[in-house]
Amino acid sequence: MGEFELIASFFADSGIARQDVIVGVGDDGAVLQMRDGYDLVVTTDTMVCGTHFFPDVDPRALGHKLVTVNVSDLAAMGAEPAWLSLALTLPSVDEAWLRQFAAGLAETADYYNCRLVGGDTTRGPLSLTMIAKGQVPRGRAITRAGAKVGDYIYVTGTLGDAALGLKVCQGQAQTSKKHQAHLLQRFHFPSARVALGQALRNVASSAMDLSDGLCGDLPHILRRSAVGAYIDVHKLPLSQALKDSCDQPVAFKMALSGGEDYELLFTVPESKRGSLDVLLSPYGVPFTCIGRITGATGKLELKAGEQPFDYQHQGFLHFP
Amino acid sequence: MGEFELIASFFADSGIARQDVIVGVGDDGAVLQMRDGYDLVVTTDTMVCGTHFFPDVDPRALGHKLVTVNVSDLAAMGAEPAWLSLALTLPSVDEAWLRQFAAGLAETADYYNCRLVGGDTTRGPLSLTMIAKGQVPRGRAITRAGAKVGDYIYVTGTLGDAALGLKVCQGQAQTSKKHQAHLLQRFHFPSARVALGQALRNVASSAMDLSDGLCGDLPHILRRSAVGAYIDVHKLPLSQALKDSCDQPVAFKMALSGGEDYELLFTVPESKRGSLDVLLSPYGVPFTCIGRITGATGKLELKAGEQPFDYQHQGFLHFP
Repeated sequence: MGEFELIASFFADSGIARQDVIVGVGDDGAVLQMRDGYDLVVTTDTMVCGTHFFPDVDPRALGHKLVTVNVSDLAAMGAEPAWLSLALTLPSVDEAWLRQFAAGLAETADYYNCRLVGGDTTRGPLSLTMIAKGQVPRGRAITRAGAKVGDYIYVTGTLGDAALGLKVCQGQAQTSKKHQAHLLQRFHFPSARVALGQALRNVASSAMDLSDGLCGDLPHILRRSAVGAYIDVHKLPLSQALKDSCDQPVAFKMALSGGEDYELLFTVPESKRGSLDVLLSPYGVPFTCIGRITGATGKLELKAGEQPFDYQHQGFLHFP
Repeated sequence: MGEFELIASFFADSGIARQDVIVGVGDDGAVLQMRDGYDLVVTTDTMVCGTHFFPDVDPRALGHKLVTVNVSDLAAMGAEPAWLSLALTLPSVDEAWLRQFAAGLAETADYYNCRLVGGDTTRGPLSLTMIAKGQVPRGRAITRAGAKVGDYIYVTGTLGDAALGLKVCQGQAQTSKKHQAHLLQRFHFPSARVALGQALRNVASSAMDLSDGLCGDLPHILRRSAVGAYIDVHKLPLSQALKDSCDQPVAFKMALSGGEDYELLFTVPESKRGSLDVLLSPYGVPFTCIGRITGATGKLELKAGEQPFDYQHQGFLHFP
């Protein structure tokens, strides 16, 4: 396994130095200094070649996305990201590919102030598992379980861009050059709403990140919180690129069922609504109220203004 | 991915309940309450079908081993295991297989007082990544970097049993029924030396666990500590089963280069040697002095008593 140990060297200095890393890559495990009075938050996401990405994906984008999807889970819990571990399974050693992948990983880890502290490299079909660890003041993590009847439902950013970006990638959608660049950027290089997630600790009753589309993800909050919800599709935040590139039914479909936006979905009680603008606007990320929590446990109702909106949700299907 | 979400339910209650799990399986991430004044220790191990295990392996044994190899890394750092995450990639859903695997995982997690707190389930070629998290009093983790010239080198238990067990499995070695049972047990159901690892915090200058064979693993300590070592092969602790089942050269080969023993390898300074018996004997795990740390940086010397021992180490090769 000599060559596989060598690979570890590609990742040994990934991301910024952190003084709280007592032991990093190269021992039986990483030793990490937690802040007293903080809880540890841990997330895990696997990306399998052929299920979650195309074999010919840009390895830099892949490194970026692997970090982002994990950090996004931490953001949704209001945690501050700190440390990453990587379990990398490779069929063979392609140095050029690995350097690009490691570069994408390192620059994204840097961006989120994270450090790669360990992992495992093995031989097998191409697959990437990342484990992200963050910290949150004790008892302050935002879960999916706190939504209450009457709470307002918000999302950050715009919805559906990544799903349309995937279609552009696959040659299934055409649009202007400028819009195409925006949509591909949103698909290949999504952002995790880390700072905003931490600000939500003071206002949100529940939160999660949007990876499987609004209609796929919101039911998780409804189930864990034992509530229902309605969404007004006219309020869905759609980018100009999305609106210009498809007609309204398709735009709604992208926004309601398209995956991989990595925006935050969160609920806010009436009493905290007044402070939202003051608290969140410094982060420069738009946020939009799209509906409310109801008492119809487990039921997600779609409306178009005052009218019911007839829609069949089909889960975001990973290709093929 | 409905069926894959269902799978998560197999693992939802794996392992004993722990009061320090604030949020477990089913949210964006797990929220875990760290003890103030403790460092976090994190390890990751991947097992790929065809590289690390046979496709027809007993799934219960596989669940057991996945937990054990990870917990063993924590043990080697002197940490107390606490929480496990599982990234499970499956080609399809085989409920009977999954139930057995989950049972093996749960009973082993229980044994080590660990709780499965989250993970990810994806479709793809069979592969298992576990992330184990433990706690160690601040600054007290044992690393590979602390060995000093003159320190004594110890191992726990006996060496080479798992490697011979693998050969028995493959039909490449025969032995008595009783010995066979012992060797297969050691290969399929290894133990992690958790309590002893924690006791070592008071005496060991360095430690690691033996997964790739003594001659493959000890050089990691030598490199990280910038020292050398000699080992006396006559002092290697060999089980009766190993001694009865092969002639001496093969027995030495199993003990020196055979992998997957998951015993601890550690170094102890002269000044602490006197307290070893008192400190370690309560744990009921034998430990044996097999050599000493030298100033010949990076050099591992093998001796048979006072004579040099001629040996070509070949790394433990994962099949095929």
